[in-house]
Amino acid sequence: MRARTVVTATGESGAQILVDGDWRATAASDIASLVANPHWRTASTSAVAPDAGAAPLVTSPVKIVCCGHNYRAHIAEMGRPAPDFPTLFAKFSDTLTAWDADIALPGNAQDVLLDWEAELAVVVGARLRRADPATARAGIAGYTVANDFSVRSWQRRTSQWLQGKAFDATTPLGPELVTADEVDPAAGLRITCRVNGTIEQAGSTGDLVFGAAALLSYISAFTTLRPGDVILTGTPGGVGIAADPPRYLRPGDVVETEIEGIGVLCNRITAP
Amino acid sequence: MRARTVVTATGESGAQILVDGDWRATAASDIASLVANPHWRTASTSAVAPDAGAAPLVTSPVKIVCCGHNYRAHIAEMGRPAPDFPTLFAKFSDTLTAWDADIALPGNAQDVLLDWEAELAVVVGARLRRADPATARAGIAGYTVANDFSVRSWQRRTSQWLQGKAFDATTPLGPELVTADEVDPAAGLRITCRVNGTIEQAGSTGDLVFGAAALLSYISAFTTLRPGDVILTGTPGGVGIAADPPRYLRPGDVVETEIEGIGVLCNRITAP
Repeated sequence: MRARTVVTATGESGAQILVDGDWRATAASDIASLVANPHWRTASTSAVAPDAGAAPLVTSPVKIVCCGHNYRAHIAEMGRPAPDFPTLFAKFSDTLTAWDADIALPGNAQDVLLDWEAELAVVVGARLRRADPATARAGIAGYTVANDFSVRSWQRRTSQWLQGKAFDATTPLGPELVTADEVDPAAGLRITCRVNGTIEQAGSTGDLVFGAAALLSYISAFTTLRPGDVILTGTPGGVGIAADPPRYLRPGDVVETEIEGIGVLCNRITAP
Repeated sequence: MRARTVVTATGESGAQILVDGDWRATAASDIASLVANPHWRTASTSAVAPDAGAAPLVTSPVKIVCCGHNYRAHIAEMGRPAPDFPTLFAKFSDTLTAWDADIALPGNAQDVLLDWEAELAVVVGARLRRADPATARAGIAGYTVANDFSVRSWQRRTSQWLQGKAFDATTPLGPELVTADEVDPAAGLRITCRVNGTIEQAGSTGDLVFGAAALLSYISAFTTLRPGDVILTGTPGGVGIAADPPRYLRPGDVVETEIEGIGVLCNRITAP
């Protein structure tokens, strides 16, 4: 099953679901509101009105938790041991933007050092608190694609990454939620990031040290997860800062972020 | 001017303001809703009904941004240079609890390593985006007291502190909002943390490297701040993990966190 969030012609956001090959409108304003109804798959729908464009899949999740250092091949190439615990940080919902949105450089390219990070995103579908991995797995609403665009010059100012990860409207999320009965990231989905058509990152979601259910279980040990919360699971090797010499994004660059069987983000970098 | 948030006898939260020495009820559900009205100081009020207890000052802020390494004397005693940039991390609103709430150890005391961190908290009173320090100063609704109780065993598992700082209901915030015309942290307010009556932390808010306005200005360079958002400004020396040997909290301990002219938190540590 697939679901998405659009901006309607009246300027409001609305969740739609794919029924027999056609998108149908629901009463929910976004994917978070949609999946908060346990019977959302069979909720009544109506024909879609013309829409004005895409919205972030979840317009204002209460929690976005991100994991770093989570692809085995990338950890190994950096010469690090496999981690015992997931490295976690938070993002604000103001960071989210639509799957096809322009990303405005927050300053000139030389100072900002904007980098790409293709990521599998998990949308929570149930209340989870101290959930074991099986309970956490059952509480996954589905998967989508994110790019955790990072301002390296700010991320590296201090030991804590937040300020480089929290620029407003720099994290595209979408284009669709795909439920767990349609795709299984643990079986290995190809994840890629292309910049101006050149593949910069290529990995497999089967290479995650901490998979979706393990992350949700771990996070729920300290905080309550609820429908619509979003977990970003980390990025594979091939980011710009790891290149020799490092390479960063400039106005006019087009970044495509794709996960096999889920979808593609397409974002153009624009001047400040 | 002073304001607070209580739980009413019907179980809902409500903001109150102090008028001529008497607490008066407002139509707002918490301090965030209250200060979102620019005319809140002169909003109509009514006599208070009996209340059931305290609530966190802000019940669900969208953003809580915390600063580490921010007291000059503490940085110097650790042998570090003064930082060029504030070290920032985020908290979720689920971490908040009332000024007088019990703090349940999230596991047994030997594993959890729960530590105290007395902090000055700033409540945002206006929309701030790329605000200069003067604009940021004018956008401060007021000040209150927080204790950023930290689970050191989780905080130190990885490079990112979030997981040790994000246990639900471990950050008391209150008891009152005090507006900037009544107190000036930059002039130096005594900040203390007492455990079972013994002073463990003692500092001055005049010793902050990045004061309230500087922090709001810096944060607004990457993300939008809005009325009710909360900034924790860091803790002075004297935390348990820095003691020799380190000392952590146990069930039955009582922690009092006080800032001169603002108020006192009183929290009892309880068994899991």
